Amino acid sequence: MSRPPFTRIVQELPATVPFIAPEEFERRSGRPLKLRLGANESNFGVSPGARAAMAEATEGTFNYCDPINHDLREELARRHGVAMENVLTGAGIDDLLGMIVRAFLEPGGVAVNSLGGYPTFNYHVSGYGGRLETAPYRNDRNDLGALAETARRTGARMIFLSNPDNPTGTYYGGDDIRTFIGKIPPDCLLLLDEAYCDFAPAESAFPLDPEDPRVIRLRTFSKAHGMAGARVGYTLAHRETVSAFNKIRLHFGVSLMAQAGALASLRDPDFIRGVVRAVEQGRREYHSLAKELGLATLPSSANYVAIDLRTAENARKVVEELIHWDVFVRSPGAHPLNRLVRVTVGTPQERAAFGDIFRSVIASSRI
Amino acid sequence: MSRPPFTRIVQELPATVPFIAPEEFERRSGRPLKLRLGANESNFGVSPGARAAMAEATEGTFNYCDPINHDLREELARRHGVAMENVLTGAGIDDLLGMIVRAFLEPGGVAVNSLGGYPTFNYHVSGYGGRLETAPYRNDRNDLGALAETARRTGARMIFLSNPDNPTGTYYGGDDIRTFIGKIPPDCLLLLDEAYCDFAPAESAFPLDPEDPRVIRLRTFSKAHGMAGARVGYTLAHRETVSAFNKIRLHFGVSLMAQAGALASLRDPDFIRGVVRAVEQGRREYHSLAKELGLATLPSSANYVAIDLRTAENARKVVEELIHWDVFVRSPGAHPLNRLVRVTVGTPQERAAFGDIFRSVIASSRI
Repeated sequence: MSRPPFTRIVQELPATVPFIAPEEFERRSGRPLKLRLGANESNFGVSPGARAAMAEATEGTFNYCDPINHDLREELARRHGVAMENVLTGAGIDDLLGMIVRAFLEPGGVAVNSLGGYPTFNYHVSGYGGRLETAPYRNDRNDLGALAETARRTGARMIFLSNPDNPTGTYYGGDDIRTFIGKIPPDCLLLLDEAYCDFAPAESAFPLDPEDPRVIRLRTFSKAHGMAGARVGYTLAHRETVSAFNKIRLHFGVSLMAQAGALASLRDPDFIRGVVRAVEQGRREYHSLAKELGLATLPSSANYVAIDLRTAENARKVVEELIHWDVFVRSPGAHPLNRLVRVTVGTPQERAAFGDIFRSVIASSRI
Repeated sequence: MSRPPFTRIVQELPATVPFIAPEEFERRSGRPLKLRLGANESNFGVSPGARAAMAEATEGTFNYCDPINHDLREELARRHGVAMENVLTGAGIDDLLGMIVRAFLEPGGVAVNSLGGYPTFNYHVSGYGGRLETAPYRNDRNDLGALAETARRTGARMIFLSNPDNPTGTYYGGDDIRTFIGKIPPDCLLLLDEAYCDFAPAESAFPLDPEDPRVIRLRTFSKAHGMAGARVGYTLAHRETVSAFNKIRLHFGVSLMAQAGALASLRDPDFIRGVVRAVEQGRREYHSLAKELGLATLPSSANYVAIDLRTAENARKVVEELIHWDVFVRSPGAHPLNRLVRVTVGTPQERAAFGDIFRSVIASSRI
């Protein structure tokens, strides 16, 4: 054997990663980042109760974690008014998306995402030998009509939609989602990524129907709950779907600390409400900051605001200039979103620091 | 859509899980286990430095973990005298095994394990549509000749071997492994699971050759390092292999706490040496206990001892009787190992308690 005998799918995969990590920028510059505002992490931290639960769990870490995730799933089921058999936890939405693609997409099968939508979904689609089809954003929102039409035209097995949307921050109301589901082909799934739903208005909520095998919902503790580094998310789905996931999932995928922390965080809704209020305040500040500089913003229902730099060239320049200041933000790669710079809502101190640097960057870069 | 449209592979999978978890026994009985000695967890705990590092990491858990696992991989590479490009971390060996099977085994492709060998490997083989072929144990050891012959006969793409072996505790020396590699088909990989290598004599070590694409080694922090609940392991492999894994792996799979804890644990070799010595003492006690009861044991180079109950019926009775005492141990499912009861080496207190209960169980069960 001169070369490792990979499968055909793996041999043909390009060597890409969905994201450059903030740690990578730090290694390149040799300096810590001053402001880490590019990955929509919750800089308001984690609930003190969740932190204590995780720290306490480190004592028992010589034991394996409960592979059933019983207590966490039970609590999630209770809160969502569904059976435990409709809930499956995983090591974050990325893990769950990989499992969903694996369970439903045959090699060569088609999956649909918005052009510029969440790249990790696309990563899993290619990783399992699927074919990605995209529909461009329209008026800075996912184009539901075009997504459904693309799925119909290509015989797609699944459509990915984040609501609220990443990277724009826009959202659709529950009624729009219902209408959308009526338009997608009958044998096509909707993967509804609701990572940012805690930050969205109530009217964005789409009622749960655990009897509908077509809709798979995804939630995470990485955003409002401030547990991105712990790796825990969950899916709400038809019980037959969950039961199939149980045939392929990694049983010990959600660590002891993650299970304990997520359960404790669910039991501290006041903390989450506080984070949501702080984020609302921060969004208002970002909107004002942009307005002061003559820049438009997109309305946001998430923990970030997309600032409109008018051209992709401007957006690229600003992101690069900010990284020279050790400020990490991101700009979507695909037209027409690539004129946006997406800035995570940080703490009041971080927002003030960002405001100062952003003003300088805009002033000096003559855009 | 009346039923979720799973892939052909997933539709055909049986609903099995590799293990019944200890937590499941607790839920069934409504009582906590008294002795948890069935999953080869390290009841000696985790290094205080690793625990502190994990507890401290909980503060930063609102940030994503470094997807490159840079610092941990760098330290592992240094210790093993290989390049960082030969090291890939993952959420435990189970995660890494899934990734390896996915990267190398086409649907319908053949993988070989010993009959009664590590079931999670088999789980991944079926989960990715592969076909499992087995070779029975011989004299309570993996039968290297039969494994190689089975691979040749079936056109297998990979052979799984744990060394030291789980569940028997036996091991092969480095020279035996080298001879074995010479006998396996040239286009077949060897997955060498060295989860328990910290407990084994030096002569079991098989020298690293990162230029050999045929051998993929697997290590874990779940055993001697006492971090089973944190989910972190790694693979040492050819750099082309690692580079292919990078095209399909879950980027944020190893949590912030796991990365910090593993790095700190590597820096506390005295703690690991202490665990290894304690385990050696515990093994001697288990051997004596069995001898006192007229039972044979297998020699063990791991953190458990397999006690020979002479028949599968006896072993089953003893395991069931022990669970009535809230003592969790396991017995391998397959002949000829199913006459064994595998008991994890616990702390001195746990061993004393186990001794008392085991004596009663053997006395009362008239085997």
